[in-house]
Amino acid sequence: MNNFNHDDTICALATGGGISAIALIRVSGNKSIKIVDKIFSKNLQEQKSHTVHFGNIIHDEKIIDEVVITLFHKNQSFTGEETVEISCHGSKYIQNKILELLINSGVRLANPGEYTMRAFKNGKLDLSQAESIADLIESESEAAHKSAIQHLRGGFSKKLQQLRKKLIDFASLIELELDFSEEDVEFADRNQLNNLLNELKIEILTLINSFKIGNVIKNGIPVTIVGAPNVGKSTLLNTLINEDKAIVSDIAGTTRDSIEDEIIIKGYSFRFIDTAGIRKTDDTIENLGIDKTISHAKKSSIIIYLMDASEKIENQLTNINTLDGEDQEKVIKVINKIDVLDKLESKIDDCILISAKENIGIDELKDKIFDFTMINALDNNKTIVTNQRHYEQLKNTLNELELVIEGLNNGLSGDLLAINIKQSLFHLGLITGEVSTDDLLSNIFGKFCIGK
Amino acid sequence: MNNFNHDDTICALATGGGISAIALIRVSGNKSIKIVDKIFSKNLQEQKSHTVHFGNIIHDEKIIDEVVITLFHKNQSFTGEETVEISCHGSKYIQNKILELLINSGVRLANPGEYTMRAFKNGKLDLSQAESIADLIESESEAAHKSAIQHLRGGFSKKLQQLRKKLIDFASLIELELDFSEEDVEFADRNQLNNLLNELKIEILTLINSFKIGNVIKNGIPVTIVGAPNVGKSTLLNTLINEDKAIVSDIAGTTRDSIEDEIIIKGYSFRFIDTAGIRKTDDTIENLGIDKTISHAKKSSIIIYLMDASEKIENQLTNINTLDGEDQEKVIKVINKIDVLDKLESKIDDCILISAKENIGIDELKDKIFDFTMINALDNNKTIVTNQRHYEQLKNTLNELELVIEGLNNGLSGDLLAINIKQSLFHLGLITGEVSTDDLLSNIFGKFCIGK
Repeated sequence: MNNFNHDDTICALATGGGISAIALIRVSGNKSIKIVDKIFSKNLQEQKSHTVHFGNIIHDEKIIDEVVITLFHKNQSFTGEETVEISCHGSKYIQNKILELLINSGVRLANPGEYTMRAFKNGKLDLSQAESIADLIESESEAAHKSAIQHLRGGFSKKLQQLRKKLIDFASLIELELDFSEEDVEFADRNQLNNLLNELKIEILTLINSFKIGNVIKNGIPVTIVGAPNVGKSTLLNTLINEDKAIVSDIAGTTRDSIEDEIIIKGYSFRFIDTAGIRKTDDTIENLGIDKTISHAKKSSIIIYLMDASEKIENQLTNINTLDGEDQEKVIKVINKIDVLDKLESKIDDCILISAKENIGIDELKDKIFDFTMINALDNNKTIVTNQRHYEQLKNTLNELELVIEGLNNGLSGDLLAINIKQSLFHLGLITGEVSTDDLLSNIFGKFCIGK
Repeated sequence: MNNFNHDDTICALATGGGISAIALIRVSGNKSIKIVDKIFSKNLQEQKSHTVHFGNIIHDEKIIDEVVITLFHKNQSFTGEETVEISCHGSKYIQNKILELLINSGVRLANPGEYTMRAFKNGKLDLSQAESIADLIESESEAAHKSAIQHLRGGFSKKLQQLRKKLIDFASLIELELDFSEEDVEFADRNQLNNLLNELKIEILTLINSFKIGNVIKNGIPVTIVGAPNVGKSTLLNTLINEDKAIVSDIAGTTRDSIEDEIIIKGYSFRFIDTAGIRKTDDTIENLGIDKTISHAKKSSIIIYLMDASEKIENQLTNINTLDGEDQEKVIKVINKIDVLDKLESKIDDCILISAKENIGIDELKDKIFDFTMINALDNNKTIVTNQRHYEQLKNTLNELELVIEGLNNGLSGDLLAINIKQSLFHLGLITGEVSTDDLLSNIFGKFCIGK
């Protein structure tokens, strides 16, 4: 490792910045206890792992703070290294002062993600598990949280281990053939090999396809609201978002930073795109057809086509035909402003009737949006790929595998097949970190926050 | 207590909000362990105090997070109550979910300052110490931090106990006289009483006077820069503030949120007032005399009077005479733009020569600003009152004491003197909380953040 020295002791603030009751500074490395002991009022050197000590951080005979210190011995901590956690008062002055004292005692300020990288290096986590920690911390919805914790718990890693084992089994059959190639004996039954490869291919394809849903779980499901000016697009958007904010603030105390233009339905995040356009359009009466937002429809998984109950519905419905066939399939038809009418001119199939202004029919609309994703049909225990990097390595693995299959069908010799098998194992190994490079690790952990 | 129930178990996030590596949720009250035990994967009920447990928070058989739990038994925690600290991943989703689980298990979300109030109620801290925790968390400068930690450590409380003891001694002498009043015996030597009272008065006056410096330690020492347009007031302000920011960011990792218009010199905070005015004035050439900021000079402890080296200094100096005599004493005379001259037209006594633009003489100016405060002359171990409430109660104590002295001199009887003595003890008691009311406590702890 060029960028990271793993012999020294590192420190960083692990909790959120700003003023708070408590802040936590984490020290990791083989001199952690020895160094913290020097600035602490009690002896820490002979203490057991997982013990807690109340005392003072002292500098120049002055008390910097009253703190609680927790000790974790080597192989018994998150990083696998000797670790000391200092729980101090959440003043910026104190946080900085303690970090300064540690740095002056020879501790280095940690790089982004360095604690997790050390955990990886010490075999506490594989690479895909380490990456799931960043996902876990950033998860805003139940679905994103669930998939991150499943990955952290090793669900994905286990699946990859199974694939890896099958590939290695296959490789050893081929190797065997190679060893005896001079004797011109074909040990590996080509049919059996073919079956094994196809089985692998289907499993990898399933994982690759899961990324489509994994990606939206992580980043939210894109939704566009389209419709003529003044049908109430911005009112609907505000109703959906404000209701979401109200739900969120029901959990008192801390609230999720409501992301503008995002709502959570049944634990999944739905992200409204081009909302700036929506918010502008209602002020202008520039065009009477489906407005500019149509160009954004392509980027979304769901299109809410909003109509005005006080206008002729048939005329408005025809506008949907101007959409591409593929986009037409994403449309949820919604008739707004039902509060201003005694009854609708005619019953329209397949349309949801709402009043965005009076909050009528909004729950029904939400149910429809959720059903539209087909998330319900998902197998609850299915492994879902959520990480772009994993997705790409799985595609690389598949490419190599297809070359193997092709080669096998064309009667290629074992030693040539072995090259592609090794390549596919290489790409799988990059996901879990069995294979890794400095650049790869820098790239992955560089995206973490400092302190993690 | 009306507003606060102390029998139940409370929870809150103790660390800063936002996404971070780790967040800490604190549960306090006599059911803490029992309740957390129900949502944790390992048995916590038979565990010792000050022990640490790694495991999972579970809900509906689903893992919410992998956490580290620390137990503090009754009388061994900050609040004095049974306490559980849950150290989880710093995701908002997880923080909210764990709080939600706790609330659904019968834990109540803590009110602002409720942990500290419970510590006070359980005799772990007196009221002035409890208040110093808020000061400690908010301290931005070394000086503010030092005085807060001194108060937390009980320096001020001890001083108040001494005063209280003397007053009680005095009261008992008077009481003795009262008991035997029918016998017309004067047990208390009026001279001795007078001396004791004067001694007390001087000590309380010293504390009251210390508030002048205590207040600036806490809120920063107000400084105004005045001078004609275009002498470089805004350049000087920016030079001072940018240099400060550069120093601050030397401590890598976390940095103090630089407060605009504040600089730290030798650990003390100096706050520049009416800087908006300064920043505006340099753009306009409205008046050639001392500009509008002069009206703000009264509010400041230090006036930097800035002159232009390329203009006649004598003429500029005369403007100082337009200040009130009291304000003239606060003036530091500074000549700017010395970089544009080969040499100054004449040597001016008492003036600091600088170039704000070229960063010349700035350190000398800072030294001068610091010396001007006379902070150096302070006794390092002197108790300084920093809290407005304490200051006011000390003044009330003094008022009552002066009535006692007056009464004693006028030969008032002991039972009448006793009334004022009791009142002065009452006001002293309000500081440490020996006397307290619901309103007082609500007022004090209501200003704390939730989680403290």
